[in-house]
Amino acid sequence: MNDSWWLKPAQALNVPMREAALARQQQLTKPTGSLGQLERVAVQLAGLQGREKPAVDKCWIAIFAGDHGVVAEGVSAYPQEVTGQMLHNFIMGGAAISVLAKQLSAQLDVVDLGTVSPLNLPGVRHLNIGAGTANFAQGPAMTVEQGLLALAGGRDSVLRAKAAGSELFIGGEMGIGNTASASAVACSLLECAAPLLVGPGTGLNAEGIRHKTAVIERALALHAEQAAGDPLQSLLCMGGFEIAALVGAYLACAQEGIAALVDGFICSVAALLAVRLNPSCREWLLFGHRGAEPGHRHLLETLQAEPLIDLGLRLGEGSGAALAVPLVQMACALHNNMATFAEAAVADRPA
Amino acid sequence: MNDSWWLKPAQALNVPMREAALARQQQLTKPTGSLGQLERVAVQLAGLQGREKPAVDKCWIAIFAGDHGVVAEGVSAYPQEVTGQMLHNFIMGGAAISVLAKQLSAQLDVVDLGTVSPLNLPGVRHLNIGAGTANFAQGPAMTVEQGLLALAGGRDSVLRAKAAGSELFIGGEMGIGNTASASAVACSLLECAAPLLVGPGTGLNAEGIRHKTAVIERALALHAEQAAGDPLQSLLCMGGFEIAALVGAYLACAQEGIAALVDGFICSVAALLAVRLNPSCREWLLFGHRGAEPGHRHLLETLQAEPLIDLGLRLGEGSGAALAVPLVQMACALHNNMATFAEAAVADRPA
Repeated sequence: MNDSWWLKPAQALNVPMREAALARQQQLTKPTGSLGQLERVAVQLAGLQGREKPAVDKCWIAIFAGDHGVVAEGVSAYPQEVTGQMLHNFIMGGAAISVLAKQLSAQLDVVDLGTVSPLNLPGVRHLNIGAGTANFAQGPAMTVEQGLLALAGGRDSVLRAKAAGSELFIGGEMGIGNTASASAVACSLLECAAPLLVGPGTGLNAEGIRHKTAVIERALALHAEQAAGDPLQSLLCMGGFEIAALVGAYLACAQEGIAALVDGFICSVAALLAVRLNPSCREWLLFGHRGAEPGHRHLLETLQAEPLIDLGLRLGEGSGAALAVPLVQMACALHNNMATFAEAAVADRPA
Repeated sequence: MNDSWWLKPAQALNVPMREAALARQQQLTKPTGSLGQLERVAVQLAGLQGREKPAVDKCWIAIFAGDHGVVAEGVSAYPQEVTGQMLHNFIMGGAAISVLAKQLSAQLDVVDLGTVSPLNLPGVRHLNIGAGTANFAQGPAMTVEQGLLALAGGRDSVLRAKAAGSELFIGGEMGIGNTASASAVACSLLECAAPLLVGPGTGLNAEGIRHKTAVIERALALHAEQAAGDPLQSLLCMGGFEIAALVGAYLACAQEGIAALVDGFICSVAALLAVRLNPSCREWLLFGHRGAEPGHRHLLETLQAEPLIDLGLRLGEGSGAALAVPLVQMACALHNNMATFAEAAVADRPA
């Protein structure tokens, strides 16, 4: 790991532009602070984009997919072939994220890191890192080499986004079994007992959740020595290819200067991994939504994140972040296009 | 009040279409229920619009403005001339709701029910019901005749919306002093002590809130006999022209068959008045957001409302509802355009 590109610092905020945007917010024809969180989003984006009037008209949505060996332990409500079938659905336009990308006129970049049956789907980038991860209840999920390839797979999507002039990056994920993987990594990072974080994923019942929790507890014990205090080892031991790609993507966003809008539970685990590996990336991350998976609340608190929506979503694919995009766009439109008290000749409140 | 048009029943739901939409949601390529509240919104709209695939592409935003005599008691952070100045700002495009209407390609219908200084602004409908309401801390806010004119003013905007083919109605409000009026009406309807409901409005400090609360308590005592158990009298005694217009608008939406998306605290008071006057209108109301004004939570609970966003907004003008429109539109797009498991050849979970 001589070439630890992900440790390079994030681009610095443009503090004067952030201050200018903050001053502008005070002058717009509305009671101070009355646009709540949308004011903070506009001001943050001004600092990130280095312009007093930010915009996120061009969005890039990358879907990272991968299979999980841990599915052999019976931790998912859905059969494993769904990962590959959904890759096909993404490019055919029938998946939730496909519909949302079309609504947003966003570019959809579908990246298959490695599925159990090798696929060859036009419109999908197949990276073939492996036939899914190994079963992390029995050993490390991936090799160092596989982990580095997956991190780079995420970064490469960000480089394509940058070349396309994207102003906002959304990472999504697809992988049957990946809430089990993400929960294990989260427990390791947060030093938290599995029952506090493990949830139903795509729809386990109470018995299914108990079983999934037991599998994760076993894996945490197996990898405890290797993973303790080392986020990269937590990722390699218990993560997934698509989770590693998300980590690489968030870190690359911060380095390349593109704001990232984080989706739900699994993406937030990747965001926490990214922040633990390289804390300078934190201010480049915005958070789209608070998901239904119970562990998500712990992650958002740890990240001091303030998500934009809370609609009981638990789909993944980047869908919760995509749904929040119009709010970010309208935060920018309000910031950029509202009149000031002086321009509109409206009386401000007495000082 | 022989012609109590507002008591006529709401249009009936199309139950077969609602059921068809519910069945469709179960077949889309996602875990059951994983789109959370957005699934419920799409199903509700299918029942309201009488089509399995609902749409809210054409939105109508009506802003109802009026002045409040109670401002003489010192209950607002802003001077009263701001109501008229903001009417000008609405049509010039500088206000928050003007920016949002443009983003949504929504029709903006600006209705001045009655301001302290008569205005003549091109692009604004001036109804001249009165030079603002009377000071409700000293007597009834409006006469019966004024109340009926204001209710009809709201209904007339809905009829214009219907003629324009609108699929979603948003009512907004502007009126310096109107959180005081709305709080008084809410206390009367909910039989609730003023300190539980009264908040800062556009930005009172703690001393200002105490004073506003005392004014409202005095008014509630003054009107107690007249208003007890009679929502129409609560409106006439302590309401505002723009609040009455919103009540009329919500009732007309239900009668004319147009779904209404309710904004924040003041609009929710109007919604509660509408439901108390004519409970059949309730199912035609969707709720855009949970606002920062503390009384809003009580109202939403009473209405069993499930708002779409919660961003700490306290602006009014219909802005919180307008911000929620893309979520409603994307709920429809997902419902209408996602593939079913059969169409996409994706394996569903084992039954």
